[in-house]
Parts: sequence; C-alpha cells; structure tokens
Amino acid sequence: MKIALTGCAGFIGSNFLDDLILKGHDIIGIDNLSTGRKEFLEKSANKKNFKFINEDLFTSNNLEEIFKSCELIIHFSANADVRFGLYHTSRDLNQNTIVTYKILEAMRKNKIKKIIFSSTGSVYGESKVIPTPENVNFPIQTSLYAASKLAAESLISSYSYGFEIQSWIFRFVSILGPRYSHGHVFDFYKKLINNKNELEVLGNGKQRKSYLHIDDCISGINTAFEKTDKLINIFNLGTDDYCEVNDSIKWITKELNVNPKINYTGGDKGWIGDNPFIYLDTSKIRGLGWSSKISIKDSVLSTLNYLKENQWLIN
Amino acid sequence: MKIALTGCAGFIGSNFLDDLILKGHDIIGIDNLSTGRKEFLEKSANKKNFKFINEDLFTSNNLEEIFKSCELIIHFSANADVRFGLYHTSRDLNQNTIVTYKILEAMRKNKIKKIIFSSTGSVYGESKVIPTPENVNFPIQTSLYAASKLAAESLISSYSYGFEIQSWIFRFVSILGPRYSHGHVFDFYKKLINNKNELEVLGNGKQRKSYLHIDDCISGINTAFEKTDKLINIFNLGTDDYCEVNDSIKWITKELNVNPKINYTGGDKGWIGDNPFIYLDTSKIRGLGWSSKISIKDSVLSTLNYLKENQWLIN
Repeated sequence: MKIALTGCAGFIGSNFLDDLILKGHDIIGIDNLSTGRKEFLEKSANKKNFKFINEDLFTSNNLEEIFKSCELIIHFSANADVRFGLYHTSRDLNQNTIVTYKILEAMRKNKIKKIIFSSTGSVYGESKVIPTPENVNFPIQTSLYAASKLAAESLISSYSYGFEIQSWIFRFVSILGPRYSHGHVFDFYKKLINNKNELEVLGNGKQRKSYLHIDDCISGINTAFEKTDKLINIFNLGTDDYCEVNDSIKWITKELNVNPKINYTGGDKGWIGDNPFIYLDTSKIRGLGWSSKISIKDSVLSTLNYLKENQWLIN
Repeated sequence: MKIALTGCAGFIGSNFLDDLILKGHDIIGIDNLSTGRKEFLEKSANKKNFKFINEDLFTSNNLEEIFKSCELIIHFSANADVRFGLYHTSRDLNQNTIVTYKILEAMRKNKIKKIIFSSTGSVYGESKVIPTPENVNFPIQTSLYAASKLAAESLISSYSYGFEIQSWIFRFVSILGPRYSHGHVFDFYKKLINNKNELEVLGNGKQRKSYLHIDDCISGINTAFEKTDKLINIFNLGTDDYCEVNDSIKWITKELNVNPKINYTGGDKGWIGDNPFIYLDTSKIRGLGWSSKISIKDSVLSTLNYLKENQWLIN
C-alpha cells in the first residue's frame, strides 16, 4: 500500500516507519525535523520503498501533490509538548488543529479514503471516571494541547461523515521506549547527569500516570486498523496499569545507581493543565485480541537505557 | 459594565445588544456586516452607550485595541450556517475556531476575565441520549460547524484553566424570533412566496427539532451569567419540547393560508451532518429558576410574522 506518514522522524513516527518499511509498504515520510531527528530515519533511510520529504506541514502548499496516489495517510506529526502550551498559545492550534485541516483537505482533493490519527488521552481532561473509557461523559478541555487534538479529532470525524473518509483515531497515554526524547524519563535523566545528588520533581510526585511502550503502541494501532472497518474508529491505547511519578523515580535512580535528594515543587499537578491521574480503560481495543506485553517499569527502563546509549540526544 | 459584543448586527447579537443598551451598559459592538444587517442596529444606533465598529474579526489586527478596558466579552459572531459547511470547508474553522482564538488572545493581553460564548447543541452530534444533557457521553462530531464550535469551546475552557478567565458557554438549539433571517422558517416562507402551490422539504419532514425564542434565549443567558460563578459554566438552552418539521409546515401554511403540495427530498436527514432529532435536556439551567415562556409554535409564528412585515429581508 502507498502510504504517507507525517511526523516520520519523530519518536512514534520513526518507530512506526521502520515497521511499515519492514512490511514492504511504499512510504512517503514527511517531517520538518523541528523536533524529529534525521538520526531516527537511519534504519529506513536507504530502503527503496521509503522516500523522505523535508516539509513543514503548516506552511506547505504542496500537500495535495505529495499525497498523490496514496491510499492511506498516517498523521502523527504534532506539537507534542503539553506543558508549555500557555507560553506560546498559537502553537497547538497551528501545528495540531490547522495542520490536520490541511491534511484532510489534501486527502479530500486526492480522494484518499483512510486516515490514522494520533490523538491523546488528555482529551478526557480531568475525568472523574477512571479508568476512562472512550465514551465517558463529555469532558472539559484543560490544556491547549488537548483542545487542539480534540479539535483535530472533530475535524476528522466531520470529514468522515461529509466525505466518506474512514478514520482510526487513537487516544494515547504517554508512550515510552527507544527514541523518546522528551517527557519525564528524559527530564529526570538529564537532571541526574548534571547533578546526581538532587532531583527537582514538578508537583508532589504522587501524580498517577499510565504509560505504554512504543512496540505495544504500534501493535495496538495495527490491530485496530486490521480488525475494524467502521466509518469512524476511536480507541484508547494504554497499559492496563498505572504508576506514581515516585515509582518511576525509584526505578530510574536504582538503575542509575544514584540516591538524590528529591525536591518537590508541590501541588497535585506538575503544571497548569496537568492531569494528576491518567489511566485509560482499554477494554475496547483489548476486545479485538490486543494486549500490551511490556510493563510500565520495563518501558521506563527501556527508555532510560536507550538514552544512556544515545547521549547525543541529551543537550 | 463596559462590554464588547461580537456579531452585534446578527440575529442573536442585535437582539442581545438592545437588551444590554436598555440596561445601561457601555457597549462596543463589532460586526463585519457579512450576514449581520445594519438595519438590526437601528434601535440602538444612536444611543450614547453604544459604539459600533465595522471590523472583520478573522483578518483584524486591532482586537487588542478594541477590547481595551472592557470587563466582559460576549462572543456571538460566527458562521452560523450548518448546512453548507462541506461546500467551503475552511469557513467554519476560520470564522468560528480561529476567530475565537483571536478573541481569547485579545482578552488575555487586556487581562479581561469574563467571556460569554454561543455554542451549539450540534456538538452532541447524533447523541442517542435524548433529551441530551450537558454531560452526556463524549460525542462524535458530524458537521464542520459543530466541530468548529466544539474546538472554540475547548479553546475557551483551556484559557479558563490557563489564564483564569471565567467562561459561560451556551449550547443552543435553533433560536427563532424577530430578525431571524435564515433557517427553515425563512426558507419555507421564501419558497411559498415564490410558489404557494409547492414546497420542497429537505429530508422526510419527520426530523424532530427543538427551538427557542430569542427572548427566552436572552433571559436564559442573563440568568446563567447572574446566578453562576464557576470558572467554566456550560449550559444547554432550549425549550422543554420539540416538534417535527411537518408540524412547523402546518403552522406556517395555515398562517399564510396556503395549501402547497409538499415534495420531500427524502431520507431522515435534511443534509449530510443534519441531526434528525435535536432535543436538549435543560434541567441544569431550569435549576437556576429559568424557564422558557414562548412555545415552539409561537416562536415559529413570531418569526413568520416578522418576515411578513420585513419583506426587504427576503431576497
């Protein structure tokens, strides 16, 4: 199948790319390398069935041309930073909502009928229902990131209704594993390299979060895409478990053999819009026979070990 | 109170304007007169406490200046056309989502801490729960209009969380009454003027819809604004009733004393994204002591009689 993959040099995109290339699909990979890394493309770079296009989706006028003859668009490109949304208020709107609109327009003009989209469990805001299922009560958005992703979901489903474009929308917990180069494991590791005796932690450390390993994320997306065929297919993706930030700190410090003094900034949230308890109900996708294979602890350690072996990322 | 009112020359905006002017508020009214009408401003035009600014919100660079020293923004400006969204796919995104972002930015820069926003019951998509309460299951968007309004709601609530801006968000059914110059009553009346012997009806005529009179709409907004004080206040607004399109046809044809042959285009929807059954649960706002005073039938007839007396609108 000829597929266009946006954000192909990002953490999730590049891992997904390697899987698609292995399976023999023809891939047009698009990335502006703003947060994506050319190094993440090395495994697939020279494969005959991969073509890389360095393009900024927000400013591009070439999407219709780039997507020509594609049968499926996998749209993973995004501003994935949740925490700093309030410091640059247009970024989520531009890079997540408006870019998704541009993707959908280019699909419509090319009559491309399938899209896979990476949304986020953050669209549930501070849901009182935990674990949170896909059809929980209408949530209220608490971050510009989640607002922009829900807006993108809404555009996609409207295009599904209006133009018969089939969509697979995945609401992720945080994904961990090789090439993950932001988020709490990255931050903690970087801080501990600089000073192994102290570690600043945003919030009180009791925030409870669910995480999923990138390999499980890929198998989840593949399972849903292969086994569901509705007009709009929405799935939570996460492990059937959660941990406290403090658990993760213990695993990381033990692995690094350090014993820092922990300085909590305090409060039950790491930042405005942070959700102190994220744990998704994944019954729907597990009902398709999928399950995660890698525990949260092993996901944290796999991320940490990748970073130890790839110090060039720490800057 | 100094208030900026967007869409002040529109159907809802101009009626709300007259109420605000009567109450003695200082109003900056903004409209680009694209669908708004200068004639709708006549009642308030010469009042000392009203200043009209002809400005296009989407292209404007002056919002920060215009909003200066305002304490409340009432944001009613919108592309309110649901039906033709698929024919000009950027319009809802630009005029509803992006304009709302611009409004919020101008508020943030001016440290304005209150916003009233007109959303829509269409954000519930094709909810299976009817009457539909505010906290119904997470809906799926079926029209670009509703998608753009939900995106605007999400931006507003994110700004509420992030910048301590209090918001009052109203999810309306269709509003009827004087100055309503699109929608089914307008369409039917216009068609019957041209040919009293035939009437084309989109769908099968069995679509069930709830409507609210503009006077009840205004009293509902005022009640919620006066009586609630949370960070984010979301209310359905509608009558505790619904009618079939066929009921409305009977009322209209009887009032006009005509007996046309009805030609249904067929299907349970009038157009793609049309919701065949809209009926909102308004317990939440009725819990504040508000109730609608005008029946759906009287709302339809009041709209019709306004149009009869204002033939200049029919073109």
